[in-house]
Amino acid sequence: MKAEIIAVGSELLLGQITNTNAAFISARLAEAGVDVYYHTVVGDNPNRLDEAITIAQNRADLIIFSGGLGPTKDDLTKETIAKKLGVALESDNDALISIEAYFKRTGRTMTDNNKKQALVLSGSTVLANNHGMAPGMAIKKNGKCYILLPGPPHEMQPMFEKEAIPYLLGTSGNKEVIVSRVLKFYGIGEAELEYRVQSILDSQTNPTVAPLASPDSVILRLTSKAESVEAAHKLITPVESEIRSLVGQFIYGIDEDSLSSKAAELLLRNGLTIAAAESLTAGLFMAELADEPGISSSLKGGVVVYDENAKKEQLDIPGSLLDEYGVVSSECAAALARSVKRKFSSDIGIGLTGAAGPDPHDGKPVGTVWIGIAYKDDEVKTYKLDLSGSRNANRKRAARFALYYVIKELKSRLPEN
Amino acid sequence: MKAEIIAVGSELLLGQITNTNAAFISARLAEAGVDVYYHTVVGDNPNRLDEAITIAQNRADLIIFSGGLGPTKDDLTKETIAKKLGVALESDNDALISIEAYFKRTGRTMTDNNKKQALVLSGSTVLANNHGMAPGMAIKKNGKCYILLPGPPHEMQPMFEKEAIPYLLGTSGNKEVIVSRVLKFYGIGEAELEYRVQSILDSQTNPTVAPLASPDSVILRLTSKAESVEAAHKLITPVESEIRSLVGQFIYGIDEDSLSSKAAELLLRNGLTIAAAESLTAGLFMAELADEPGISSSLKGGVVVYDENAKKEQLDIPGSLLDEYGVVSSECAAALARSVKRKFSSDIGIGLTGAAGPDPHDGKPVGTVWIGIAYKDDEVKTYKLDLSGSRNANRKRAARFALYYVIKELKSRLPEN
Repeated sequence: MKAEIIAVGSELLLGQITNTNAAFISARLAEAGVDVYYHTVVGDNPNRLDEAITIAQNRADLIIFSGGLGPTKDDLTKETIAKKLGVALESDNDALISIEAYFKRTGRTMTDNNKKQALVLSGSTVLANNHGMAPGMAIKKNGKCYILLPGPPHEMQPMFEKEAIPYLLGTSGNKEVIVSRVLKFYGIGEAELEYRVQSILDSQTNPTVAPLASPDSVILRLTSKAESVEAAHKLITPVESEIRSLVGQFIYGIDEDSLSSKAAELLLRNGLTIAAAESLTAGLFMAELADEPGISSSLKGGVVVYDENAKKEQLDIPGSLLDEYGVVSSECAAALARSVKRKFSSDIGIGLTGAAGPDPHDGKPVGTVWIGIAYKDDEVKTYKLDLSGSRNANRKRAARFALYYVIKELKSRLPEN
Repeated sequence: MKAEIIAVGSELLLGQITNTNAAFISARLAEAGVDVYYHTVVGDNPNRLDEAITIAQNRADLIIFSGGLGPTKDDLTKETIAKKLGVALESDNDALISIEAYFKRTGRTMTDNNKKQALVLSGSTVLANNHGMAPGMAIKKNGKCYILLPGPPHEMQPMFEKEAIPYLLGTSGNKEVIVSRVLKFYGIGEAELEYRVQSILDSQTNPTVAPLASPDSVILRLTSKAESVEAAHKLITPVESEIRSLVGQFIYGIDEDSLSSKAAELLLRNGLTIAAAESLTAGLFMAELADEPGISSSLKGGVVVYDENAKKEQLDIPGSLLDEYGVVSSECAAALARSVKRKFSSDIGIGLTGAAGPDPHDGKPVGTVWIGIAYKDDEVKTYKLDLSGSRNANRKRAARFALYYVIKELKSRLPEN
C-alpha cells in the first residue's frame, strides 16, 4: 500500500509552524508496514487542495490529511474532500454531543460554526477526538482510503494511534510488519563508512541498509519486512553481524543510544565514578553526560579551567609543563586528566584542551584538540583530534569524542559489556 | 512569484527526521515577499523525484530543493535535475579545492564519491557551502528558477540566507528592499508579550510585526519594505521605540544577539571577569558563555559540583548550611556564587542549583531552580525559577536564565551600556 500525507494549513507554508504531523504519521505507518511515498503541504485554499488530492489519487492508495477540520472559515478540508468524492456531509450525533458537553463544561457559549465541527463525511468511520472537538474520519471510495485528522499534534497523535492505526490494520489485510535496527557510529565519516560497507549496501534488499549522517555522527538503519516481528529480526541479525565485522570498532551503540546515554550506562553499570577538567569545551563534556538521569552517582563533577592561570591554580598544572609543551598538548591533557581525577577522587579523569578557534591558540592551529583519559592508576592515554568546523562545532565534537573515548575505554577494559 | 519547496530524503518519509528546512525556507521567503504554495517531500528515488519536478514545474516559478547533494549513492538530486533540465554536470574547481583542503586538513582519506560533491549544474550560479562540503546551486531555465540546497540545516540555513536570498532579490527584478529587525525577549511568554503589544500587532502593516516563539524565548520580527535600506530603517525605528516603551525590560538583544553573545559583550566591554559553580546545569552555563570567541579574557572558569560532597569539598559549602536549608535553596545558590567568585578571584560569581528531574531532589519539586549572582563585594542576589519542562529543557533554561540575569545585572549597574 502506497501512502501520501497531505497537511493542510497556510501557517505551514508561511514557516510559522513545522510539519511535525507528517513525521509522526510516517514513523507510525512505517512500523505498520505502510510505505509513505510523498508528503504534501498545501494552504487553506480549496482549489489548490482539490488539485493536490487529484495528484495524490494518481500516485497513492492511502491519503491521509491533517489539518483544516476546525470551526473557522479557513477550515475547508472536509468540505473539499466531500465535494471531491461526491459524498454528503452529515452531522454526527456523538460528535455534536461531545462538542456541546465541552462548551457546557468550559462555560463558554457555543456558536454555529462550532456545530460545523460535528459534520462528517456520510458513510465514513468517525475517529473519536479525545483531546479536542473536531472528530476524525476514515472512508474508502473507489479503491482508495482517505483518513482525515485534526491539525493540532496533541489531538492528532492519540487519534492516529488509537483510532486510525487499528482501522488501517483491520481493513488493509496487510499482515506485514516492519522492524528497524539502527547502528550508531562515531569517528568515521559518511563517505568513508559507505565505502567500507559498499558491498552490503549494494546487495541488501531485505533488510535494506541505509546510511544517514547527522552533523557529527553517522548511522546505518537496517529495515526488514516479514510476516512477524521474530522473522523480521531473523533477517536483520546476519547482516548486522557482517557490518560489525567490517566497521564494528566505530559502533558505539544502537537504536535510541546516544553517546551520553551509552557512556552513562557503562559508567553506572560498572559502578565507576568520573570527573573532568575542561578547557576549550568549558563544561560541554560534563553537561552532555549530565543529560542522563541518575548520573549523579557516577559524575562527581569537575573543573572548567578556561584560562591558563586557572589551570595552574585550580589543578596545579606546573608552569614548567605549560612552558615546555604548551597548553594545547598531549602532556597538558594528560596532566589535566590526572589532576582532576585526584582532586575529585574519581575512578576516571578526563582532560580536554585545544584550539577551538577562530584564532590559533598557543601556536596550535584551529581545530587541534588533545583529550586525556586517566583510568584509576594506569598511565594516562591521550588522543589528538584535528577538527575542521566552526569554533562551536569543534567544541561540541571535542566533547563528543571524549564521550566516545570513554565508551571505547570501558568496552575494551570490560569486554563483558 | 509562486514557489514550491521540494525536500528530498527517504528519512523524511520514514519519519526519522522532520522537515524543518521547508519551514525555515518558507519563513525567509515570506519576508522576501515570495509566496510559497506547496511543500513536497519525496524519497531518494530518481523516478519519483522526476515526477515531483514535473508537477512543480506546472504550478510554481521558483522550485527550491533541499537534500540529496551528499556523497552517497542515494544522493541523486542534482543528477536527476541535470537530466530533467538537459544540463550537464561539471566539476566546480573552487568546490573541489575546498573539499580536498578539508580532507588534507583533517588528515582523512578522500574517496572518489567525495569528488562527486564538487559536481555542479553547468551554467548554474554556485552557492558556497561554508559549513560542509556540498555546494548549492541556482539556475534559470525556461522561465523557471531552480535552487539546490544541502539537507543538513546547519549547512542549508546560512547558505540560504547569505547566498540564495541575495541571488533571488538580485535577479527577481524586484527593486524593493526588505529590512528586518529582530527584538529578542527572555523571561516573558509569547501570550503575555502578544497581549502587551496587541495594539501594535493589530495596526502595523509596514513594518509588519510578527511574534515568533522558540522553545525558551520569544522574538518580535519587524519587517519593512521600501525603495532603499535607509527608508526601510526609517519605517522601523518609531515602531521599535514604541515596543521598547511597552516591554523593553524583557528585551535582551536584537538581530543576531544571543543570550551568550550579549552577556559576553557586556562582560568584555566592561573588563569584568566571571566564574560559575554549577550543580544541576553541570557546565551548561559556562559552555554557553564560551560559545563566544574572545571570552577567555572574561571567563576564568568554574567548578561543576554535581554531587553534595563536591559542593563541600570543592567549594567549602558548610554542611550545616546544606543541612539547614538544603541543596536546592537560595542560601546554597548564594554560597556557591560567593565561594566560586573567591576561588577564581573573579568580579562576578554565579551559583546554579536545582531539581532538574525526573525525580524531586532534596525534597524540592522538579523544576525548582535557584540562581545566585555575586557581584564584587556586594550582597549576593538570588532568583528562583519554577520550570515545568523535561529534565534537559529545565537544565538548558536554568543556564539561559543565568545568562539573562547576568545581562540584566550589568545593564542596571552600567546603564551606559
